[in-house]
Amino acid sequence: MEKVKLLGTWSSPFVQRVVWALKLKGIEYEIFYEDFANKSPELLKYNPIHKKVPVLLHNGVAICESLVIIEYIDETWKDTSPFLPHETLDKANARFWAKFGDEQALPAFYDIYKKQGKEQEEAKEKTLANLKLIEQQLNEKNFFNGENIGFLDLAFGWLADYSRPLEVISDVKVLDEESFPKLCAWREKVLAIPAIKESWPDQETLIAKFRKIKESKGQ
Amino acid sequence: MEKVKLLGTWSSPFVQRVVWALKLKGIEYEIFYEDFANKSPELLKYNPIHKKVPVLLHNGVAICESLVIIEYIDETWKDTSPFLPHETLDKANARFWAKFGDEQALPAFYDIYKKQGKEQEEAKEKTLANLKLIEQQLNEKNFFNGENIGFLDLAFGWLADYSRPLEVISDVKVLDEESFPKLCAWREKVLAIPAIKESWPDQETLIAKFRKIKESKGQ
Repeated sequence: MEKVKLLGTWSSPFVQRVVWALKLKGIEYEIFYEDFANKSPELLKYNPIHKKVPVLLHNGVAICESLVIIEYIDETWKDTSPFLPHETLDKANARFWAKFGDEQALPAFYDIYKKQGKEQEEAKEKTLANLKLIEQQLNEKNFFNGENIGFLDLAFGWLADYSRPLEVISDVKVLDEESFPKLCAWREKVLAIPAIKESWPDQETLIAKFRKIKESKGQ
Repeated sequence: MEKVKLLGTWSSPFVQRVVWALKLKGIEYEIFYEDFANKSPELLKYNPIHKKVPVLLHNGVAICESLVIIEYIDETWKDTSPFLPHETLDKANARFWAKFGDEQALPAFYDIYKKQGKEQEEAKEKTLANLKLIEQQLNEKNFFNGENIGFLDLAFGWLADYSRPLEVISDVKVLDEESFPKLCAWREKVLAIPAIKESWPDQETLIAKFRKIKESKGQ
């Protein structure tokens, strides 16, 4: 019997994408919630480099970094719901855009929530440009890889479940239906998937949590 | 007949790792050198998002981001010199450390060359800590993946061929034999591989080039 544990927090989009991956594959797992003010000995032991969540423990062996974990899950449990596309070129494309998401699109989006005034305006402009590029990748497909949810949908998962709460708090709307009809339709499709719907963090609680973080940092 | 082109510069460690990958696999390719003051229409066309090298063109289709390119090369030409380890856990480990290298170890090392005074001292401390972690990964193996050069050796390739020039320019030594005997031995093994030896940028020219960049930025 395989033992799968996840060290996480309920509010991290990086943990959330791993939760989705596990649920989509139908993998039984146990989640342990970390308190960042008081990190668990397990977190310090299994991710000594970054001391961050998510950490996946598979039969006691640790895998860190959310996108690395998702590739690991996909390669280990390959019989159900493949995440990475089959063709090498499509795979490269998915990895390129996942990197773009984490290094460019997500930080800019998060800055809208974190910053004020001119800096917030700049983050908004950057985000609109990024979303335009992401929307083009989606094109006429239901999901980034075609008919089924895959690696890039998980990588862009924060756009589905965190964009609205962050927009509410910052009172800046970027992902609107008129400008990004395909991305908005994609969001609805992602969030309607049962495995995702049941693990989608409650939006009001998420808003309250991120509002509190913002206030505590005096942003 | 497959057509492989590489858009690059002779002095970028990110291009260099792709050159090594192509040569190790024995893939025929043509390299086109970019002038950053005057980027080619090809670069702007094939990497419109980042406008950066390296870009691999395989039968006219572009792949960007050096680590993504290396995985693509490994998956496309799989019969010779596999780069990624076979086991999923080892694969995840290689990807984790490659990410650590690009996001943490390389920027800190580069800061020793770029910065002065207290900031340089901090970059040196960080680098020593990073190198210690990397040395532990190497352990008693010849290469990061064992007996043969692989993905992580390519990802850490900058440590083999750029560390010495950058140390010379900054007059700060970090990768010394006493502190990092395994990494130093690894460097010699990497640089002795014929495919790499023949494409190793000339160290004096590299020093002159990076010294000029530093001076032009008033660092």
